[in-house]
Amino acid sequence: MNKQHNIAILGIGTVGGGTYDILTREAAMLKKTQGLDITVKYVLDKCKDIIVKRGVPQAAAVDSLDVILADESVNLVVETMGGVEPAKTFILKILQSGRSVVSANKELIAKHGKELEEVAKKSGAGFYYEASVAGGIPIIRVLQEGMQANNLVEVMGIINGTTNYILTKMAEQGLAYADVLKEAQSLGFAESDPTADVDAFDSMYKLSILSSMAFHVPVSHTQIYREGITSITAEDIVNAKLLGYVIKLLAIGKRSCEGVEVRVHPCFVPLSHPLASVRNEFNAVFLKGDSVDDIMLYGRGAGAFPTASAIVSDVISALKGGTSKTDVFSGSDKVNIIDDFASSYYMAITAVDKAGVLAKITEVFSKFNVSISQMVQRGAAGEKAQLVFLTHPAKEHSMQAALSEIKKLKEVKSSDSLIRVL
Amino acid sequence: MNKQHNIAILGIGTVGGGTYDILTREAAMLKKTQGLDITVKYVLDKCKDIIVKRGVPQAAAVDSLDVILADESVNLVVETMGGVEPAKTFILKILQSGRSVVSANKELIAKHGKELEEVAKKSGAGFYYEASVAGGIPIIRVLQEGMQANNLVEVMGIINGTTNYILTKMAEQGLAYADVLKEAQSLGFAESDPTADVDAFDSMYKLSILSSMAFHVPVSHTQIYREGITSITAEDIVNAKLLGYVIKLLAIGKRSCEGVEVRVHPCFVPLSHPLASVRNEFNAVFLKGDSVDDIMLYGRGAGAFPTASAIVSDVISALKGGTSKTDVFSGSDKVNIIDDFASSYYMAITAVDKAGVLAKITEVFSKFNVSISQMVQRGAAGEKAQLVFLTHPAKEHSMQAALSEIKKLKEVKSSDSLIRVL
Repeated sequence: MNKQHNIAILGIGTVGGGTYDILTREAAMLKKTQGLDITVKYVLDKCKDIIVKRGVPQAAAVDSLDVILADESVNLVVETMGGVEPAKTFILKILQSGRSVVSANKELIAKHGKELEEVAKKSGAGFYYEASVAGGIPIIRVLQEGMQANNLVEVMGIINGTTNYILTKMAEQGLAYADVLKEAQSLGFAESDPTADVDAFDSMYKLSILSSMAFHVPVSHTQIYREGITSITAEDIVNAKLLGYVIKLLAIGKRSCEGVEVRVHPCFVPLSHPLASVRNEFNAVFLKGDSVDDIMLYGRGAGAFPTASAIVSDVISALKGGTSKTDVFSGSDKVNIIDDFASSYYMAITAVDKAGVLAKITEVFSKFNVSISQMVQRGAAGEKAQLVFLTHPAKEHSMQAALSEIKKLKEVKSSDSLIRVL
Repeated sequence: MNKQHNIAILGIGTVGGGTYDILTREAAMLKKTQGLDITVKYVLDKCKDIIVKRGVPQAAAVDSLDVILADESVNLVVETMGGVEPAKTFILKILQSGRSVVSANKELIAKHGKELEEVAKKSGAGFYYEASVAGGIPIIRVLQEGMQANNLVEVMGIINGTTNYILTKMAEQGLAYADVLKEAQSLGFAESDPTADVDAFDSMYKLSILSSMAFHVPVSHTQIYREGITSITAEDIVNAKLLGYVIKLLAIGKRSCEGVEVRVHPCFVPLSHPLASVRNEFNAVFLKGDSVDDIMLYGRGAGAFPTASAIVSDVISALKGGTSKTDVFSGSDKVNIIDDFASSYYMAITAVDKAGVLAKITEVFSKFNVSISQMVQRGAAGEKAQLVFLTHPAKEHSMQAALSEIKKLKEVKSSDSLIRVL
């Protein structure tokens, strides 16, 4: 009695492969529990050999989109290729033909979401992307279908598994960034070119999607303040521990009457905060709404099966006619981006170890209205000492101005770190 | 351009009042972000005075369901009365008339879900109950729409805010159960008759709903092993702390090839486990699926606005034609309920303090294949001492048999506590 659904998967890498595996292995379960009879009719990749080697029957392996477009029995396409092109061209063609698309492609959606959803709206095709943020955690669904009663004021979290893995290993094993990165690469937790993760582009794209949804205004990735983890030192990690913190790469979106604040950067997280215990490759997202108060979702943010789990949930929504995402990036509302946000700071500098230095530094802080909450002098080595400061909340611009003036003091040998504190 | 939706709310208590407030206060926001024009046309309660006092206009206040049933412009009814009757009769009449129902009534749904969903299916009415479990946490939505790719093997959590509040205060302030209960009652965190919460009926109803959904087989509340928190002593709390645990009331559902294991009881939770840090009235639910692995959702499990937030999300789903819950309790699959589950245990007994007692006790344990992982002797008072044991995983029936035999030893003065360990 069930209608037969033929779908295609574009890209048979980790996530595409996991999706293929679930849809074929669990076909009977999905028929029974969802009433859906789903067949993966095509798998597309650059070369048929790779597809067949991955366990896909020869007849389903294709290397050209035309076969899929020409087959009218295909009513849904899953895109797991990643990157902007050719994914964008492919998805546009499929949406234009009226077929629904399920995508895991955060970069494409963050950069071209508006164009994609406009095309989908015009042709009546569905467009779904649960898997684009936080892997197996159903954060997109919760934002769109569970929080509508709320004016959301905050969406914040650890949404990149690679950097969280690296920072966890640095903190727990006392290793240097470069060593952990090498290990993560050899284990397959980091790409051979790790830029997208460690320089926080990945988190930035995801935050663009999350904050656009949460705040009902398009937030472009170009409006997000971005800072990666490459300059975090083993010393910062030790200092954090001494002060009762752990360093995490956080994506932070806040909405207030003044506008929206969006930033991705390393952050000192107090050990008592639930995000502090999110270890290794796990992700977690916090939401704060005016009705629901705090909500946290925790789970695996990457990996073949967790991500494929999210894709399959979208496939089922799409086949059951669930609400497609069509107004996330198209809103005409202009939003004020607050770049002079307030934060507490951790600052480490190396200075000559003699009387009067501290007075000079604190004078600069005071000039820029930055107030110190904690100060530690560490590891005096000969004539130099490291000075570590934690500040009370200050404006970003004031803090940067203070740092710039402190650097100019002749007693200051180097400015080692400036990290925001949650 | 938006269709006008008229809805009615049955019951203007805490949750009904919160729902009324959100729907009226946020009408413009819901119109803008959801494209829905919602009016609360009627509010029903026992007496019109109460309704009007709550801020509802006189014209909307009704004390008879007939007015609502007779008004064909009403297309959805929210039920927040609680309890089985008259809620059941009212909901049945509304569903029979083809109107959708959003309910927060876990007791009614756990006890009569099958009848309600059959009536809804027959008339084509929608039936939704996100708010029935874990307040503002969108766990029902996540189970039904985010986890379909998974064979779920575990659903577990802290799903009663009152008992979690009591246990948190006992642990953090070293107070006795009775004193904290009194304080919770005066603060409105516990009912004047606290039975439903402290004897774990509330958690039991919720677990019936969660496990029926998660495992795709109807799990009756009568099949759930239930034990409340009333016999937890300040001494148990101290012992837990000494051993590195905190005591929580857990609802646990597990699915394996052998069947389903469903139980609600106090549990020693290791301090390193994320559930250990769920404090006060907060709730958290863990899911384990074969694709997604571990997922945790955390938030406020009760309160006017968090619960109303869940109700409003259901109202919106219903008005947008979202999938109604119609096959949760109606499944014909029979499931084997495993009552002889395995667990580790904490056991405290008071015995005479003399040589040979421990040997006798451990002999009984060994006879029933219960193996000890830790033993502490505490507070020898004159001739008596408290003996505290932690066991390795053992079968429930073996443990109960061992305890029963230990109690008969003439050296054993009292059996103080038996609490399972996560």
